[in-house]
Amino acid sequence: MIRSYTYEKYVEMVREFHGYEAPGLLIGGFMIDLAYRHLPAEGLFDALCETSKCLPDAIQLLTPCTTGNGWLTVVNVGRFALTIYNKHTGEGVRVFVDPSRLENWPEMRVWFLKLKPKREQDMKRLLEEIRQAEDTIFKVMRVRVAKRFLEKPRRGEFTICPRCGEAYPAADGPACLGCTNDSLFTRVD
Amino acid sequence: MIRSYTYEKYVEMVREFHGYEAPGLLIGGFMIDLAYRHLPAEGLFDALCETSKCLPDAIQLLTPCTTGNGWLTVVNVGRFALTIYNKHTGEGVRVFVDPSRLENWPEMRVWFLKLKPKREQDMKRLLEEIRQAEDTIFKVMRVRVAKRFLEKPRRGEFTICPRCGEAYPAADGPACLGCTNDSLFTRVD
Repeated sequence: MIRSYTYEKYVEMVREFHGYEAPGLLIGGFMIDLAYRHLPAEGLFDALCETSKCLPDAIQLLTPCTTGNGWLTVVNVGRFALTIYNKHTGEGVRVFVDPSRLENWPEMRVWFLKLKPKREQDMKRLLEEIRQAEDTIFKVMRVRVAKRFLEKPRRGEFTICPRCGEAYPAADGPACLGCTNDSLFTRVD
Repeated sequence: MIRSYTYEKYVEMVREFHGYEAPGLLIGGFMIDLAYRHLPAEGLFDALCETSKCLPDAIQLLTPCTTGNGWLTVVNVGRFALTIYNKHTGEGVRVFVDPSRLENWPEMRVWFLKLKPKREQDMKRLLEEIRQAEDTIFKVMRVRVAKRFLEKPRRGEFTICPRCGEAYPAADGPACLGCTNDSLFTRVD
């Protein structure tokens, strides 16, 4: 089981949401399940994800935290790790892959450390190893997240940008960040 | 209809994924539907979202693009706007709210420009206005996104961080960014 889902059901959810059966989401499912088993049953929890690859989608599928509701924060420091924490106190549980525990799982080790190009990896074997390993390749750490993850400043009033004519948070300055920062796009019509 | 869903079905999906019937996701649904009507039927499309509030979740529900699969990029410049673009050429369609078109929708205007505190807003009326306005408050712009949104650099090899003992992209330097940047958390066990 992955939270309240069978493994098969979770794989189906992964395919539907993420587009394909990505190893990182399957591993992530076991990580989140493990995290919740170390958290109190009650409480409002936010999530902090240390990579932008795959893992944020496991969090979005299995916790109430999403990119758009502000309860998921991704800080891409390149580590396959996540923390689920009490949104008021910042106390929570960090789950991460322990590289030394990958010794028994050769294909997972190849995938995780990118030891071979994707096309030379054995996807079938990798998926089998993920399922067999379950939560045995992780470590759990009790942590308190930094204060900046607890403060969610209100954006205050909006105003109209004199350059693009769109609304933006007045606190951003005399014009919107879309007009004053590096260009996002050029018009083609 | 919002893409292939009835409005009611979409509202249900919003509640399930985002946690509540957020006005920004309902408006976002009409924006995405409008964008696709201006795009070719065939093609691989990525998404660029100009706010981190609400709108990314509409994109994740109604397009193949998610935070974890790398096809959704959020650059928070505070504008309620999204672009869906061909991932190879960068050409696409940007949809944004035209503030002048909110004149006929007083409650939406109050919500969008944050003219009153949340508790003084009339949520029932707001949701009615969103549904009635459908896609009439937006403008569509043909754009080409900046080159940096087309390049998806591979991360290369991974190595073990001498400080935390976890795996990280070797290109990040002699230790991982989690150990060398601002602290994300402190251990409490």
